[in-house]
Amino acid sequence: MKSFIQISFDSHFPIQNLPFGIFSTQQNPTPRVGVAIGDQILDLTAITVLFEHHVSELKSPSNVFSQSSLNSFMSLGKPLWQATRRFLQNILSNDNPELRDNDQLRQKAFVAQKSAKMHLPAQIGDYTDFYASKEHATNVGEMFRGKDNALMPNWVHLPVGYHGRSSSIVVSGTDIVRPCGQRLPAKDHPPIFGPSAKLDFELEMAFFVGSGNKPGERIPIDQANKHIFGLVLMNDWSARDIQAWEYVPLGPFLGKNFGTTISPWVVTLDALEPFLVNGPTQDPAPLSYLNHDVPSAYNIQLEVKMKPNKSDFFKTLTRSNLKYMYWSLKQQLVHHTVNGCNMRPGDLCGTGTISGSTEDSRGSLLEITWNGQNEIDFENGIKRKFIEDKDEIVLTGYCQGDGYLIGFGECSGKILPALQ
Amino acid sequence: MKSFIQISFDSHFPIQNLPFGIFSTQQNPTPRVGVAIGDQILDLTAITVLFEHHVSELKSPSNVFSQSSLNSFMSLGKPLWQATRRFLQNILSNDNPELRDNDQLRQKAFVAQKSAKMHLPAQIGDYTDFYASKEHATNVGEMFRGKDNALMPNWVHLPVGYHGRSSSIVVSGTDIVRPCGQRLPAKDHPPIFGPSAKLDFELEMAFFVGSGNKPGERIPIDQANKHIFGLVLMNDWSARDIQAWEYVPLGPFLGKNFGTTISPWVVTLDALEPFLVNGPTQDPAPLSYLNHDVPSAYNIQLEVKMKPNKSDFFKTLTRSNLKYMYWSLKQQLVHHTVNGCNMRPGDLCGTGTISGSTEDSRGSLLEITWNGQNEIDFENGIKRKFIEDKDEIVLTGYCQGDGYLIGFGECSGKILPALQ
Repeated sequence: MKSFIQISFDSHFPIQNLPFGIFSTQQNPTPRVGVAIGDQILDLTAITVLFEHHVSELKSPSNVFSQSSLNSFMSLGKPLWQATRRFLQNILSNDNPELRDNDQLRQKAFVAQKSAKMHLPAQIGDYTDFYASKEHATNVGEMFRGKDNALMPNWVHLPVGYHGRSSSIVVSGTDIVRPCGQRLPAKDHPPIFGPSAKLDFELEMAFFVGSGNKPGERIPIDQANKHIFGLVLMNDWSARDIQAWEYVPLGPFLGKNFGTTISPWVVTLDALEPFLVNGPTQDPAPLSYLNHDVPSAYNIQLEVKMKPNKSDFFKTLTRSNLKYMYWSLKQQLVHHTVNGCNMRPGDLCGTGTISGSTEDSRGSLLEITWNGQNEIDFENGIKRKFIEDKDEIVLTGYCQGDGYLIGFGECSGKILPALQ
Repeated sequence: MKSFIQISFDSHFPIQNLPFGIFSTQQNPTPRVGVAIGDQILDLTAITVLFEHHVSELKSPSNVFSQSSLNSFMSLGKPLWQATRRFLQNILSNDNPELRDNDQLRQKAFVAQKSAKMHLPAQIGDYTDFYASKEHATNVGEMFRGKDNALMPNWVHLPVGYHGRSSSIVVSGTDIVRPCGQRLPAKDHPPIFGPSAKLDFELEMAFFVGSGNKPGERIPIDQANKHIFGLVLMNDWSARDIQAWEYVPLGPFLGKNFGTTISPWVVTLDALEPFLVNGPTQDPAPLSYLNHDVPSAYNIQLEVKMKPNKSDFFKTLTRSNLKYMYWSLKQQLVHHTVNGCNMRPGDLCGTGTISGSTEDSRGSLLEITWNGQNEIDFENGIKRKFIEDKDEIVLTGYCQGDGYLIGFGECSGKILPALQ
């Protein structure tokens, strides 16, 4: 498969990918639906006539694609996502002259990514964060509760999750203000108030729910993939000192809800299907509603880079992989709805921090510096235990195909000083 | 103050109240904004011309009041809520002939509550639930973790809260399907799957955020009331067996997110102001950002009634009061935003279960039956430890004024059998 659009060998967005996003431009500041191809964006509002000719099952494409979120498209369901994807691969193909040789339409339909502003891809109703990496849960549990209570008894029986804050989810490139809050200065001392001194990132991915379920009904595991629209990278910024003090017994709250960053391009499950692999063995076997005997993990290589304040260079902090995750995306969604909890198009579910079994695959500074016991060295003598003001964190990830990448672009953010 | 609309002495909705809600009728099924007065609803879309004459600072009232949620009105801010309230009290007054003597307009403007369908008052972006009653937190802590760990050390320093699920918040009168999930059949046994056997209610109230705050900024305590639009009753249905197994370490999830019921009429803080009283003494004194030295608790009498399946009668299970709550609504909102977490119009914050210090003021069956150790007797030999299928729960509440009530109406729900 080859597009008439030039794609560099290391592009995250070849014709095999075609992720969906919301963008605007200076000339047309109305946010709308686009698809990434190479270093360009195909503006779907510019080719609605082609949709009308070729994807007749998609009613009113001009309405669906002129929305400022993907929710409307997500709600149409998997057959229409797939029909749209097939059509886009066809119309972008080097073998198809319809768009390729129509200079006037090409002029209208393509926007350079570097001249576009990206927005949140969806209006996120509810945001849930899971805790699905055994290595991460074990590392954090050991630090917060000691080795004997690291992994709670429920952890191997169900994908532990909790509700997060949707209002503070922002798109890659948005600055985050350092949070203030209560923390303990030392054990058995009363809490003090001030800017967090243990600000951290979390390397996560997250899936967007496409079509939902009705209240009281559940999504069975063999139907789960039909309800998942696609994936993004996610940085679940965390204030470890605030979190450690507040989180018992009802879970993380202000230590997390000041900001969560996601990448702008939603990569569809269809684009990721060639990269399905078996996940870790699950022992004990999960209860039957969580059981799947087909490959359900995705081989997605992940990386976190940091550029400390006053440095000009990014240093790689960790390399991990989504396939390390113990509980699959399908198991997360199925468990979430097993009690009849209703999902809606645009709901977001994070995986939790994705850590591997080695020290260089840990997905947070908490784990990398072991709660600040060790320092990370950068050039020019710069050192870090946690994130300082004006530091930048970039997450990136891709699947290695045969001569191409299916990439997620970047999920980046910079920390601004706390407001006093 | 007296209205030309007949108000019975025990009505929750005299002219002193004027709560806002979203309703529709068979004749006009479009949900729109109304105000409860006696057993009637004043349809605000029918009197937009009067708004234009008398509340000129309210731009495009026809747009604001024809919305299917209060979010647009909530976002206008407290001066406009108050101007609207003053105008409505004036136009409904017995002394004002403008609406009183305009038969044609009255015909259009009033709808009997019994012939209206009520809807959720707002599109709820984020829903947070606090844990602000010391008696409830102590009771539950004792049952789940033992007497020595009942109240966690952080509890007296901050209003503990967590994020809940907004998709499953429903308006009073909506049936709730019994959730299924994992639970432990006995200590140290593996979990089993099935319908919850410990289904419970929680007597709560909740406030709607009116105007929000920007990411990174915080709401100071002396400004908090400007951001709170009003209050509703809330039943935070809870599956205690699912909750007990899943909740460590990240908090309640499937034990709660299958359904939360709220009452349809939002009672404004202005209507509640005459009922401000001092709350419980806070010892230790909270950190300065949480400090207020003015009465900040509300004297709202609360009651829960239950009608078990096959019974014709409601029995009162408990009587409590919002003033028992340790952390005030203002402290909850201020703490929530102290880390820069942004609130949006229509966000909902629950208080957590409101229990008093006596056995007959406990706000959940978990506490009333002490986790099923004791049974509640109903007529005809019916007994309950937890909620069974087709049981109905009704919450109600009011402030006792001088010759009038400021009431919240009802928050009711019936449990349907689990879907297998």
